[in-house]
This record gives sequence, C-alpha cells and structure tokens, in this order.
Amino acid sequence: MSKTWKRVYPNTSMRRVAVVGAGKTRFGALADRDLRSLAVEAAAKCLENGHIPPSRVEAFYLGNFAGPSFVGQNHLAPYVASACGIAGVPATRFEAACASSGSAFFHAFLGVAAGVYDVALAVGVEKMTSQTTARVAEILASAGDLGGEIKAGATFPALFAMIARRHMHEYGTTREHLAAVAVKNHANGVRNPDAHMRKAITIEQALAAKPIAEPLTLYDCSLISDGAAAVLLAPLERASEFTSAPVEIKGVAQTSDYVALEEKEDITTFRSVRMAAEKAYRMAGVSPSDIEFAELHDCFTIAEIMALEDLGFVKKGEGGPFSAAGCTALDGRLPVNASGGLKSKGHPVGATGTAQICDLVAQIRGEAGERQLKRHSLGLAQNLGGSGATSVVTILSAA
Amino acid sequence: MSKTWKRVYPNTSMRRVAVVGAGKTRFGALADRDLRSLAVEAAAKCLENGHIPPSRVEAFYLGNFAGPSFVGQNHLAPYVASACGIAGVPATRFEAACASSGSAFFHAFLGVAAGVYDVALAVGVEKMTSQTTARVAEILASAGDLGGEIKAGATFPALFAMIARRHMHEYGTTREHLAAVAVKNHANGVRNPDAHMRKAITIEQALAAKPIAEPLTLYDCSLISDGAAAVLLAPLERASEFTSAPVEIKGVAQTSDYVALEEKEDITTFRSVRMAAEKAYRMAGVSPSDIEFAELHDCFTIAEIMALEDLGFVKKGEGGPFSAAGCTALDGRLPVNASGGLKSKGHPVGATGTAQICDLVAQIRGEAGERQLKRHSLGLAQNLGGSGATSVVTILSAA
Repeated sequence: MSKTWKRVYPNTSMRRVAVVGAGKTRFGALADRDLRSLAVEAAAKCLENGHIPPSRVEAFYLGNFAGPSFVGQNHLAPYVASACGIAGVPATRFEAACASSGSAFFHAFLGVAAGVYDVALAVGVEKMTSQTTARVAEILASAGDLGGEIKAGATFPALFAMIARRHMHEYGTTREHLAAVAVKNHANGVRNPDAHMRKAITIEQALAAKPIAEPLTLYDCSLISDGAAAVLLAPLERASEFTSAPVEIKGVAQTSDYVALEEKEDITTFRSVRMAAEKAYRMAGVSPSDIEFAELHDCFTIAEIMALEDLGFVKKGEGGPFSAAGCTALDGRLPVNASGGLKSKGHPVGATGTAQICDLVAQIRGEAGERQLKRHSLGLAQNLGGSGATSVVTILSAA
Repeated sequence: MSKTWKRVYPNTSMRRVAVVGAGKTRFGALADRDLRSLAVEAAAKCLENGHIPPSRVEAFYLGNFAGPSFVGQNHLAPYVASACGIAGVPATRFEAACASSGSAFFHAFLGVAAGVYDVALAVGVEKMTSQTTARVAEILASAGDLGGEIKAGATFPALFAMIARRHMHEYGTTREHLAAVAVKNHANGVRNPDAHMRKAITIEQALAAKPIAEPLTLYDCSLISDGAAAVLLAPLERASEFTSAPVEIKGVAQTSDYVALEEKEDITTFRSVRMAAEKAYRMAGVSPSDIEFAELHDCFTIAEIMALEDLGFVKKGEGGPFSAAGCTALDGRLPVNASGGLKSKGHPVGATGTAQICDLVAQIRGEAGERQLKRHSLGLAQNLGGSGATSVVTILSAA
C-alpha cells in the first residue's frame, strides 16, 4: 500500500493499482451504432490492449447515465457484459449523471485495491443522438432537481449560464475568457482523430455564435455524442502480466453535494470538486503544482474555468485570465483537455469519465499522437455529475 | 477476517461486517408519497435504529431501478443522500433491475469489509404507482432484452410464464404448486403490518383468478408497490457502538448472466442464482441444510419454486411439491418469505433487496412480531434482477 493512502483510508491495507489497458470508440453522432455495440467495441479494444481474454475479467463496472431514457434499455451491466463475453462475475451499473463512469472507475479501483478482484473492467457508454435535441435536453435535465429548478424551467445550459453570470459578477470573468476555453479545446480536438467535432474556431466566431442561454453561446456548450470508453485495472505488482506500459492510479476520490443549485452556498465553486481533489491529492501525496496536465469536465466553458480554480491550479477568480493567457494550451504551463475535452472530443455522458482516464493513459504512455504533450508523467482527470452533485477526481502517473 | 472468506477472496484481509441498523417504510400504493420522502424515511429510521446521526455515514449506496422512468428524476444518489443530511461522501446509485438494492448492499459490504469505510448506508427505493399499469409493465420490460424478447412482444409476466410452462413440462410442476406459494405468502403477509396486500387467499381463489400470462394468474404475480428500505453496515468488531443486536453478514455474493431468456441454456434454472449461492455458502462456511429460514425473490410464484431448487434447499424439480407440502410455511421445515414476500409484502423493485435484509434482521433479532419464527438465527436472502441476469445471495446470522 502506498503510504500516503493511509491519510485517506487509515483502516485498510489497500494494494497499489494500475491501469493496464485502455480502449475507446470514436466519439460522434454515430447513426449506425447502438449502445451495446459501442460498449462492446471499447471493451474489446481495452482487453486487447491489456492482452487478456474476457474470461479473465473478475468484475465488470458499467457507467451509464440514461440508457433507459435514451434507448429504452435498462439492466445494462449484464446486458453489455454478456455481449463482451463476460458472464458470471458481478456486473454492475453505476449512475451518477455525467460522472457515471468516473464512479464506475472509482469503484473498480476500490475492488482491486482491496484485493477483492485482481482484474476489473470499467466501461462507460452513452448513446444520445437517436433522440431529438429537445428530448436530449429533457433527459439531461433529469440530472437536476426535477421538483425545483427543472420545474421552474431550467435546463443544464440555463443552470450553467446562471453560474457563469455569477462568476462574471464576482470575479470579473468575461465572455472572452469563456470563448478562449472553447477556442483552445476546438484547436486541440482537431488533433484528435477520435474527436466528435474536429473544427478550429476563432474567438470572434465563439463570441458571435448563436446564444443558447445568456451568456453562453453555442460554442460554450459541449456536444451531444455517442461513444464508449473502457479501462482495465489490476494490482500494480502484477501489471507486467498485462502490459509493458502500466499507468499507476496514485489517487482517486468520489464525493457528493446537493443536486439543486439553490441549495448550494456559493454557485461559483463546486464544493464536491474541492473535496474530491483534496482527497485525491492527499492519497497521491502531491499538490496541484505537481500536476503536469489535466483532462477537466468542460460540459460548459465556465465549468473548465471553475475546475481550474476548484482543483487549486489557480486562485479563485483567476481561471478566466489563466485560460485567456494561453496557460492551458498544449504548449502552456498546464495543458488542459489536450483531447479536445467534452467541447470538441464530445460528451457521451456515461462514457466521459472513463474516456478521460483513457486520454490520460494515452498521454502518459506517449501515445497521444499529434496532441502529445512534452510533460506527461503526472496527470489529473476531473469528472463532474450534474451541477456538482457528484465529483470524481483521479491522479495517474507513469508506473 | 473470517477464515472461510479466504475460499472466495484469497487476496484480501477483509474485516467481518455487521448489519447494525435497519429501517423500512410501509409498502403499498402510497399516493401521497414521493420517491425521495420514502427513501429519507427508511434512511432516518435505519440511522435511528443504529443510533447515529447522518453525519457519521461515510458512504451512501442507493439501489434504484427506474426512478428516471417512474418519476423523471435521475442522479438519485446525491439527491436522496443530501435530503437525508448526508453530504460530501461518495453517494452512488446502483441499477441492477429488481436486484438494484441487493447490488447496493453487496458493494456497501465490500466497502466496509475492505476497511475503506467504517459506516456505510445502503438504501433501496422505488416509486411505481404514479404510473399506469401498462406503463409500469413497459418500464419493467426495459430490464429484459429490448431488441429481442421485448420487441417480440414479451413482458415479464410472459417471460416467467414461459419459464413456468417449461418447468411444468420438465418436472411435472403444477398450477396447484404455484398456487400453494401464493396462498402461503398471502397468509404470511396478513401478519406483516407493513405489507402492501394483507389479504388471505385460498388455493381455489388463486387457481380461478384472472389469467395474466398462461399459466400465471393474477395471484402468481408480485405487486406494483411504492416503498423503501435501508440497512446500516459497520465492522463487526465495532458493532456494539451502534446496537445491542448486531447481525453478522456471513456471506454475500453478486453474479451475472445473459439478459435474454433465449440466450440461456436452460430456463428452468437461473445459473446466476446457483453461482451466487455457491459463493455465499462457501464464504459463510455453511450448506443449504444449515439455513433456518429465507426470504426469496418471488416476483412470480414459479420464481420462488426455482429459487428453492437453485439454492440447493431441494433437488431440481422438487420445489413445487416441497411448497405444496407446507415445508415453506411459517411452521414448516424451511420457512420462506415469512414477510409475505414480493407477492404480498409488495415489490417496489429497487427496494426489494434491502427490504429482504431488513426482514432477515427482524427475524434474527426476534422482532418479527406475529410472523416471528422459532428457528431464526441463520437466514438467507435471494434477490433476482430480470430473469436472472443479476443475482445477489446473502447469508446473515446472529452475531
């Protein structure tokens, strides 16, 4: 067990855990693909990457937000697992809004760390584009407080628009700061062959785009996508059985908070993110300044700015200027969302958490192609559910 | 760690775990209650029973099948947890069809056994009766294979009717055997003040009831109910801090299998139940003949008969005669569903797994009132998802 883990889990003798395989589908509006085939493709690529057959998997963790609403199918974990050739073992679906597969990954980690399983597979999947945009907005809104904010007419763009307005009011964040996040993530997505929208945009285009919920325009919002991503976990000491390039899970934490915005003391910060980060840093024995790159949950541009602040990369209120100054670009001080992020890579909500892990793994292994970063040995992923009711923060390093 | 656990989990040094609190709502068609208030009531009763405030809970596990479809609300774990006064800690929703809260309980057990948490709360909840029966059937069908058996016109009563027909064909099981299960469970439910339908019926009434899906009549089918049930878990060595009547978790296992009936080799048995039982027995170091009483997943009467067989209480094909002979009655050799079971107590699907645990705990503590059994120190609960794609089997004993 890592000594620093005792700070967070004093009563356990957890084993160190590695990611020993990763696999993703392309993200996009994949009209010819159904939910199950996407999940099976990601799982198969992941198992191939970890050099094991499905029969070696001892537990299956599925992150999925709203398969029953998007495609009508529930009881998804055994449905997907059996199609992957995995049957008999615990197969469990985790739902935590857009942090569903972050939660699945967290629980897979706990299972392996505790010695319950030696080989665990975490898969995230969502199939969204078979519904109309209006219906998608309605389904996504079910991750908010239905009896309160949603009944009052809010959707997620509206909720994050209120957050953005408050952040502007409190800290002087500007439309240009938001647009800088969009421009940077679109530029990165161009370099990612699996991204949903590979299209560079300018600040002017972002500012002039169609308003969605003031002050957010079209380019401040992430995409509605189909896709899946899978991660294979094993004890670090056995990692060489699976891969020559294991990636260690240095720290990971899941936290919760109120669902409704109106219940939060301050909507310019997500308490759950701060708490998850603090736990993950303590587990890993690192501080924010040690992190070399990050995949952050930019469901909206303001969310990336807040994440920079809540994760301690910059002081409160400085996320906007930090972004506008280019510090989060591929060649910046702290590259953020080299993958293109949810904005450009795409956001099949249930797949996003494990996709972020796959993106970190690709960077750490030096396999990120045109978007490969120079400093890539310690990365952080932040996965957000709803407007901060669930948070998962993970820190990975070269093993 | 229990020595026998090494047989199932050789790589862990798991701690022994106790149920130190239990709490349930009444089950029924509770028109004036919403999903969250049910879950909060069960959790509050459970925490009171375990003599701790919500702030002591270190992890929250929510079992819920289809809240998004039944009541429109998703992201339910933090939504319920925060309303219980639990915020900040991991709050996770588990969906495994009718085994959703069995799965939540299994994962709560792993968290405490592994030493990750000292105090974990598992809650199951479902609010079903706000939908029409036709819509309920449609939502339940999403736990089957949508593209296959459901598209072909099947609903769950139809699937279990096919299972019953095959069981009749292979083993000579009769309509009278099925009816005997219904009559016994209805009789037990009369003694349970929290049961949904407290109504004794005769064999003749059961046989003559409205056909639902041949050979199943109305009384072969479980109820559509609202309700919630909660269980508090802690390390056995610390149980006395919470209660003077701890109940030990001797063994628990979750397994999976194909979702679609057509993919199973034999539909008169659920492989996932046999596998989960075998693991749970090995963990507990007991055999079926040691079990003194059981709560079985009688979503349909044929399911109780199959469970008797799959759990090893009787040989294959003898579940029907065993039931008809009164062996599973309150004063029988192996009392089954003293609570009334899903048939009479009610079946708010997401709540059923944790409700079964609450029922075992009440018996083991000698607090089961009019339905209290004479031999009540070693009990088994079996929770089934869909037509056997998920199974959870738990063995509890007096600590």
